[in-house]
Amino acid sequence: MMAKKRKARIAKAKIAKARTRRAKGRKARTLPGRRNRRSAEDKLAELKARLSEITDLGSAGALLEWDQATYMPSGGAVARARQGALLRKCAHERSIDPALGKLIDELTAYADDLPDDADDAALIRVARRDFEKAIRVPVEHVARVNALGSASYDAWTRARPANDFATMVPFLEQALELSREYAGYFAPYKHIADPLIDDEEEGMTTAVIARLFAELKRELVPLVHAITKRPPIDTSCLRGVFAEGPQLEFSFAVLDRLGYDRTRGRLDKTHHPFCTTFSIGDVRITTRVSEGDIGDALFSTVHEAGHALYEQGVDATFEGSPLASGVSAGVHESQSRLWENVVGRGRGFWVHFYPLLQRAFPDQFAATELDTFHRAINRVERSLIRTDADEVTYNLHVMLRFDLELALLTGKLRVKDLPEAWRAAMQAYLGLTPPDDRDGCLQDVHWYVDGIGGGFQSYTIGNVLSAQFYAAAVAARPEIPREIERGEFGTLHAWLREHLYRHGRKFTPAELIERATGRPMQMAPYLAYLRGKYGELYGLPAASSRGA
Amino acid sequence: MMAKKRKARIAKAKIAKARTRRAKGRKARTLPGRRNRRSAEDKLAELKARLSEITDLGSAGALLEWDQATYMPSGGAVARARQGALLRKCAHERSIDPALGKLIDELTAYADDLPDDADDAALIRVARRDFEKAIRVPVEHVARVNALGSASYDAWTRARPANDFATMVPFLEQALELSREYAGYFAPYKHIADPLIDDEEEGMTTAVIARLFAELKRELVPLVHAITKRPPIDTSCLRGVFAEGPQLEFSFAVLDRLGYDRTRGRLDKTHHPFCTTFSIGDVRITTRVSEGDIGDALFSTVHEAGHALYEQGVDATFEGSPLASGVSAGVHESQSRLWENVVGRGRGFWVHFYPLLQRAFPDQFAATELDTFHRAINRVERSLIRTDADEVTYNLHVMLRFDLELALLTGKLRVKDLPEAWRAAMQAYLGLTPPDDRDGCLQDVHWYVDGIGGGFQSYTIGNVLSAQFYAAAVAARPEIPREIERGEFGTLHAWLREHLYRHGRKFTPAELIERATGRPMQMAPYLAYLRGKYGELYGLPAASSRGA
Repeated sequence: MMAKKRKARIAKAKIAKARTRRAKGRKARTLPGRRNRRSAEDKLAELKARLSEITDLGSAGALLEWDQATYMPSGGAVARARQGALLRKCAHERSIDPALGKLIDELTAYADDLPDDADDAALIRVARRDFEKAIRVPVEHVARVNALGSASYDAWTRARPANDFATMVPFLEQALELSREYAGYFAPYKHIADPLIDDEEEGMTTAVIARLFAELKRELVPLVHAITKRPPIDTSCLRGVFAEGPQLEFSFAVLDRLGYDRTRGRLDKTHHPFCTTFSIGDVRITTRVSEGDIGDALFSTVHEAGHALYEQGVDATFEGSPLASGVSAGVHESQSRLWENVVGRGRGFWVHFYPLLQRAFPDQFAATELDTFHRAINRVERSLIRTDADEVTYNLHVMLRFDLELALLTGKLRVKDLPEAWRAAMQAYLGLTPPDDRDGCLQDVHWYVDGIGGGFQSYTIGNVLSAQFYAAAVAARPEIPREIERGEFGTLHAWLREHLYRHGRKFTPAELIERATGRPMQMAPYLAYLRGKYGELYGLPAASSRGA
Repeated sequence: MMAKKRKARIAKAKIAKARTRRAKGRKARTLPGRRNRRSAEDKLAELKARLSEITDLGSAGALLEWDQATYMPSGGAVARARQGALLRKCAHERSIDPALGKLIDELTAYADDLPDDADDAALIRVARRDFEKAIRVPVEHVARVNALGSASYDAWTRARPANDFATMVPFLEQALELSREYAGYFAPYKHIADPLIDDEEEGMTTAVIARLFAELKRELVPLVHAITKRPPIDTSCLRGVFAEGPQLEFSFAVLDRLGYDRTRGRLDKTHHPFCTTFSIGDVRITTRVSEGDIGDALFSTVHEAGHALYEQGVDATFEGSPLASGVSAGVHESQSRLWENVVGRGRGFWVHFYPLLQRAFPDQFAATELDTFHRAINRVERSLIRTDADEVTYNLHVMLRFDLELALLTGKLRVKDLPEAWRAAMQAYLGLTPPDDRDGCLQDVHWYVDGIGGGFQSYTIGNVLSAQFYAAAVAARPEIPREIERGEFGTLHAWLREHLYRHGRKFTPAELIERATGRPMQMAPYLAYLRGKYGELYGLPAASSRGA
């Protein structure tokens, strides 16, 4: 999971206020020897230096986490928690420094004079958004969130195996209260979830997501229904014994082909795969190898590589600044999913890579047809666990969680009633009932660490955008699918770098999507992708693959 | 190399001053609601919290360095330098915070009331030493030292292969000037090198080291002369092809036997082996594997394990405090050398481990006798390069550098005349003349990164103390040599933990040595060790092994 992104639009009122300040500033400039005689260039340099320190403290903290997840001996855990908290504190102190706010205010007039798409104007805008988000939240609130998160996670690691939801009720109640408090710092809002969503997806609202999800649900539920009436795909070819060494070698071969730059990153093993960025020159991914499941390492590697291609592709001149990062959780997720699902589970990808896989694991795959393998890695199945879900039903798991989060935040659902509400929602979305809370509302770590409003929606926004971006890339460069069959990803990668990656956080998510695809976020490309791919895989009649 | 240690005695005057403050403090306590009504316990807790932050920022910086030396991709270097400098800056800001100084002053009276050997009294003493050292050095001086170090190192990496000393002259001249400036911050002193030496070895002076080295030189030069008149030892059994895997496995087997706790550390590969501490629970070592030289990985691993056993052995209650570290560079080095040389190159060690080594590399060692191998790993040879030197001649390399440093610092030697002075000293100490500066005064990185006064003396102090500590341990527990022959190191390790390791920086080096061995640092045990071991290995007549 990527770190939360925080960006804010500059309110019209703020700009007006800044203009007033600017006029004052100009007047003051006529007085010699005053501090505010410093040129805007000097101030901009100071702003960049301050922002670089905040970024770098975050990166140092990220290295502490990477090390903890990869190589740290168990004896290091206690001190590591203390050290990570200290770096967060140092970064937070700097991010709410009134001198930083003053500098941003003083530079707003300067930014107004720059062309709209000037990098420095974007930097000042993003700095303002981050600063204004940071200062609205009291330090003691942040401390309570962190303390609760640690205690709650600790309890959850025991409660889930014990199927003990009751223990988690007080933690979740406090988490819910903290989420409401957090939203309150950004009042007034149209919906209490809006401030939480805006942290992940600048400018996105509960209302927009609810409309989007309603449309998706209308189409997906009948599609899943139609698929599951067909004979299930045989996935037995994916099970066997796959030695770790060749699995990792194959992953490296794929990474190199995709264009992941290993001189600016590396792949290591961990329990829960992730991508992390220490600088544009050091974007690392981790994977998990299961000797009994060929897909685990492979697809988690490609998924994280998608995140990493994004971060490695940011304009090098943004290094050390808050622009040097993906623009939102949803757009980030669109890249992990574009590479993992649209590309990596596509038939064309395996036209090139399947012969290599057969050579790596001849006992397993020598006698298995490409189509058998390709069907197996795309099997759709209603299941209880989100992280095991295929790309079609995955969205139902997300929407279910989003619904429950809204019900909790608005007070329509009480925490103690969550297990029952979960079971009802599972029936409605997937026609399944979990046998216990372990595979029900205790399954995801998110609520128990990040609190309620943890950003599940970004996964489905990512799915939707993955198809929209891929369709735009193919419309612009129709040779992409044929190139993928030859194991060539340069044209696709270059299009994504040009239209998405290099911009980092320079534009808002909405601006970026519109610039890249000519349209706002929309559902049509994703639905067309799902209907096309799964209609063919499952031999669905055109009517049912188009939805009821 | 371990980081520099900084400790300071509390000057009598300071104590007197602090007592005055204490009287004032007591008076003030009668006024209600005043800040200084805070109890000493509260202040001590605040002191510990502040010191823990300084320690933790240092540990985070150490992790950045460890990662850079082990796993970091090349693309990460530029940002990593920036991030490391930022953490050093954050730590330095905290270490010179006037509020910290005030707290230490306020607690001095409290410390005076504690028993002499109370941990908290030691903590306050060490905190004062560190604080007073830190505040004497202007921030801009530290910045110039760091900037010069980076530029000089960069130039040296090119100048050494090019044998281009002339390029390095201006860098060394600046470094020398900075060393003099640094010493000036601690004026008055008896010798200009005293403040530099005190950073590494609290309480040690140039005069004491010069006396020590003169005694050692008087004994060593004839010993080396006598040895090199004997037929050289055949070391051909050490050369061959040794696969990396079995070499590392053997190293791990040795580490586990020595008592290095791998749940509180790990071993990774790097170019220049080192030991680094992130907490008492996470003390890591690195090694270097040469497929053509069995000794490289093995002895560097045991050397770094010696450092690590020391750091892992510090009292757990010191965690996060400045007490949680070895007491001085020399005492630290005594532990790496005790384990590497006194133990790891001893015959008893190989009585146990040689059969294991023979099984790991049967082609190489099956037909080689234990004594042949043991002699080979202890060959004494006059050579040009310090890092390749055996344990006897190593000290001559150190003394040569110490002499030249003193000559530079006192102005008796000009930088531009260093190559000539180096050649003369090599003749005097080792009877050799380097063919070029590459293998002469350009060989070590120290002067070109850490400046003049980089602490070479600590290596020989470590050699001397290694024998003194080992002799004291064996005197107390005579079964140690027999246990080592059985691959059992628990008694030795426990003695060292009890008498050295657990104390961290609680005592001064001089106090620690005296408490552990009953005597101040002295040369006799080391000379007896060398004469005994090499007299036997080289069959020297008693007269010449006792020195001319």
